[in-house]
Amino acid sequence: MNDIRPAGRAAAFPLRGPARIEINEVAPRDGLQIEPVVVPTDAKVAFVDALAACGFARIEATSFTSAKAIPALADAEAVMHRMQRVPGVRYTALVPNLRGLERALSCRPDEVNLVMSVSETHNRANLRMTREQSQAQLLAMTGAATAVGVPVNVSLSTVFGCPFEGDIEPDAVMALAQRFAGAGVAGITLCDTTGMAYPNQVRALCETFQQRFPKVGLTIHLHNTRGMGLANALAAWEAGVSRFDAAAGGLGGCPYAPGASGNVATEELVHMFDAMGVDTGVDLERLLGMVAALPQLVQRDIGSQLLRAGTRLRTHQPPAWLAEHFAGQP
Amino acid sequence: MNDIRPAGRAAAFPLRGPARIEINEVAPRDGLQIEPVVVPTDAKVAFVDALAACGFARIEATSFTSAKAIPALADAEAVMHRMQRVPGVRYTALVPNLRGLERALSCRPDEVNLVMSVSETHNRANLRMTREQSQAQLLAMTGAATAVGVPVNVSLSTVFGCPFEGDIEPDAVMALAQRFAGAGVAGITLCDTTGMAYPNQVRALCETFQQRFPKVGLTIHLHNTRGMGLANALAAWEAGVSRFDAAAGGLGGCPYAPGASGNVATEELVHMFDAMGVDTGVDLERLLGMVAALPQLVQRDIGSQLLRAGTRLRTHQPPAWLAEHFAGQP
Repeated sequence: MNDIRPAGRAAAFPLRGPARIEINEVAPRDGLQIEPVVVPTDAKVAFVDALAACGFARIEATSFTSAKAIPALADAEAVMHRMQRVPGVRYTALVPNLRGLERALSCRPDEVNLVMSVSETHNRANLRMTREQSQAQLLAMTGAATAVGVPVNVSLSTVFGCPFEGDIEPDAVMALAQRFAGAGVAGITLCDTTGMAYPNQVRALCETFQQRFPKVGLTIHLHNTRGMGLANALAAWEAGVSRFDAAAGGLGGCPYAPGASGNVATEELVHMFDAMGVDTGVDLERLLGMVAALPQLVQRDIGSQLLRAGTRLRTHQPPAWLAEHFAGQP
Repeated sequence: MNDIRPAGRAAAFPLRGPARIEINEVAPRDGLQIEPVVVPTDAKVAFVDALAACGFARIEATSFTSAKAIPALADAEAVMHRMQRVPGVRYTALVPNLRGLERALSCRPDEVNLVMSVSETHNRANLRMTREQSQAQLLAMTGAATAVGVPVNVSLSTVFGCPFEGDIEPDAVMALAQRFAGAGVAGITLCDTTGMAYPNQVRALCETFQQRFPKVGLTIHLHNTRGMGLANALAAWEAGVSRFDAAAGGLGGCPYAPGASGNVATEELVHMFDAMGVDTGVDLERLLGMVAALPQLVQRDIGSQLLRAGTRLRTHQPPAWLAEHFAGQP
């Protein structure tokens, strides 16, 4: 837990979910892995450090994948060693296999994040393994990491739909979660990999998950592909979920779903919950300053809607003719 | 009510709001009034007719404002006379003053929509009247319209925040609503004119409104300026609201809030509620076909996120290497 986070303001209207949420900022991993430019290590380290200063509870700093698979994150060790660890921030890293786990553990992560898909086709396309193979690997990795005291989170992809197979049965999600809960993972993330989730589905799955696995920390990972990102976040929060993945500037995406936009933008998630009076721990003004600098980092326009419009209470000057037009009136 | 609308599919997950909603398509008025190009009357009529074929419950077809104030809608009578009225669709028009009401009533609208702001500054900037003046006009117009049997809806602007004044007191909203409810209006629309609304605020105000004015039809009008459009729609729906304004392609905006994007995109609203199993009455595929044609109508790129990504169950082909890579495996 982050002890230095500012206290949220009191909610002006009733809250129907947790008064405090934690955000896991995934842009350094989930965002940068898909960008066409390779961000220099110095810039990555500065990015992670600047994020830490915003008050995030967790930051997914990098991925210990093979340099061949994802050249953009070939400097995982360097990033982990050189970033300044801010007390209260949990630094996690994505780990795809046992070789990656070995590398990750040498960098003292606060947690490791493993990943596989609920959908067979997506798992094969994304990880080049069958689900059976992935599951076996993840269980072995869970054992190895927990044996050395590093908590494991498992991210389940395509929970709310698969871009190849379509709808996914909630029972398939719960069955897979059961395997990992039984293996002692600290947390599970339900991922809407390509923005197919919709609110009552999110709510139902989150409620079922929490009833079945009350001791497993549930995180929700949402994309804004079809405009429903914040609506789904609201539904998850109303179901009691208090941990959210998000990426600054809405970076990220999925190479197997053409046209898909990225993750829920952290600044829009924070802005919504801030307005509601939910304590996110994140300094929104500072974060918006970082988002404004993202185009320089990734060398493309990121088109942040919130940045363009400003936060909701950024007021404007009335038109100049107003005073004259209403001169003499109360 | 529209008797020809297709039945919605059953919800796969529990619904926490109305099983059926009505959408008031406002693009012909709220969208086209702010576009830099003047859409020819023929194209407007075709647009309204094409919208009617999508299954909307209501269409705000035009505005009887002065040609000087909004030249783009100077052909209000022509549009109303030439459009083909589809049984079951209610055709409404915005009416700003008594002169406009006279013009509107000559065109046999199914309803007229009057407008004023809760915020004094926005009312002066947008309508060039004080709130007192606007209220007096609207009450006179309500009397005149109801006297000839035309139902009146009043749209209250800046209910959830004013771009000049900031937060708005809910009591001020309810006090104004009380005046119009007392005058016998059929409906009131609570408008988030510049996208300042947030979910627990929307929910609280909608709940309060419905408790206080159970006989007044409540519509909610949302903008997606800060990404919260669908989250706010979800909150309103969970509060029991079943009538939504929306604009195809997310057209519209507010000239007094630079950077503000437009209305909630109808196709994204329909897509979300469709996915949830809520009956919107709208044929989404047909609507998306229209949205694809909008750039030609307004002569600019409208950048529809849903159009780019496709509906949630538009599946993709797995990568070509997959079959070979997993040859011989189950």
